Amino acid sequence: MKIDILTIFPTIFKGPLTESLIGKATEKEILKINIIDIRSFSKGKHKKVDDKSFGGGCGMVMKPEPLYDAIKSAGVKKKNNTYKNPYAKPYVIYMSPQGRILNNSIVKNLAKFKQLVIICGHYEGVDERIMNYVDEEISIGDYILTGGEIPAMVLVDSVVRMLPGVVKEKSSVKNDSFYNGLLDYPHYTRPAVFKGHKIPEVLLSGNHKKISEWRVEEAYKRTKERRPDLLKK
Amino acid sequence: MKIDILTIFPTIFKGPLTESLIGKATEKEILKINIIDIRSFSKGKHKKVDDKSFGGGCGMVMKPEPLYDAIKSAGVKKKNNTYKNPYAKPYVIYMSPQGRILNNSIVKNLAKFKQLVIICGHYEGVDERIMNYVDEEISIGDYILTGGEIPAMVLVDSVVRMLPGVVKEKSSVKNDSFYNGLLDYPHYTRPAVFKGHKIPEVLLSGNHKKISEWRVEEAYKRTKERRPDLLKK
Repeated sequence: MKIDILTIFPTIFKGPLTESLIGKATEKEILKINIIDIRSFSKGKHKKVDDKSFGGGCGMVMKPEPLYDAIKSAGVKKKNNTYKNPYAKPYVIYMSPQGRILNNSIVKNLAKFKQLVIICGHYEGVDERIMNYVDEEISIGDYILTGGEIPAMVLVDSVVRMLPGVVKEKSSVKNDSFYNGLLDYPHYTRPAVFKGHKIPEVLLSGNHKKISEWRVEEAYKRTKERRPDLLKK
Repeated sequence: MKIDILTIFPTIFKGPLTESLIGKATEKEILKINIIDIRSFSKGKHKKVDDKSFGGGCGMVMKPEPLYDAIKSAGVKKKNNTYKNPYAKPYVIYMSPQGRILNNSIVKNLAKFKQLVIICGHYEGVDERIMNYVDEEISIGDYILTGGEIPAMVLVDSVVRMLPGVVKEKSSVKNDSFYNGLLDYPHYTRPAVFKGHKIPEVLLSGNHKKISEWRVEEAYKRTKERRPDLLKK
């Protein structure tokens, strides 16, 4: 998979996209990440990327021209949904508080694309006319952030995990929280007694059936207590 | 505010915590971020931070001892809720898929603390007994990520925005999406015609009352279309 990230803060991605799982996926050539500096497409001396909002009001808006040129530079020709096989063509995502809230089924679908183009907004957002070139607006949650860069990292991390060959044990992906619609059960490791706190007896029993039942019960109990909304789904 | 981040990937934070708003808040000394490498608290030759799960199953669990020592190193003495003035004492957060989903009211509350201590998990999570030293588990959303590092960046970014003196225009924070429970209205900037797409006429009218009404209408329409759940609240 190729992922182009359009940003006015290209250096912000240095750590997050070279370390851990994403770094490994890049090394294995399962993933290629291309950071595109929107500012480099700005014409004029001052390389401006923002301007005042039409109609007044405080806050700046990201100008359409440099952003449009940056999107084109990623190989985007037209909206993805106009292609016969959309997965073969670049899919343009705008990280935006106005978007659909990210969830695992969105992630699974995005993992099918050959190329994602992710736009990171700033200030009051981008000129709305850029939406003519955007396939989907995605939000990572109902909280205010400075820009789309950290949300883009969230999106990349979640999608890359789904690519074949990235996470070693397939069962490890499947057992993760949410995969079965339940929160995860509690985990314990050595020592059996830590600062006076013992691990649950059942985990020492060696009885795999009992352990498995206990885990399902705990996962269910926890989900019921903390996230009853998940059980409704 | 002081924020300690406990991680096994300390270098991942280099870009995100030095650039943009967080970087500026640090320069202004409104914020001090301290990255604590959990591995440095691991005893033994191999500096192991994980171990097999009690009761079997694939995936590794983060060991309690180095994590406990790392928490103590951040100045945590007991659970925060046992203090008379909790905001003056370190508040320990574990970024976890099992936590409460982050939202703006959680963010506003966290912004009141003098010190946050954020634990980033990995693998199948941390040994559950660490929860004896954790004040709150927070999730950023219902999607699977590699570890708690990117969620910690989300949390830090959202909280730091709320600290006095970080975002220049107070009104800019107030007008942001979600602040009034509605999605944001569309923004436009020059040119008035871009690739054949004109901006809405009203924004050129100079009639501030009309513009303001149009914006409220658009915000409401958008929220109704995309996020009817927000209107219920």
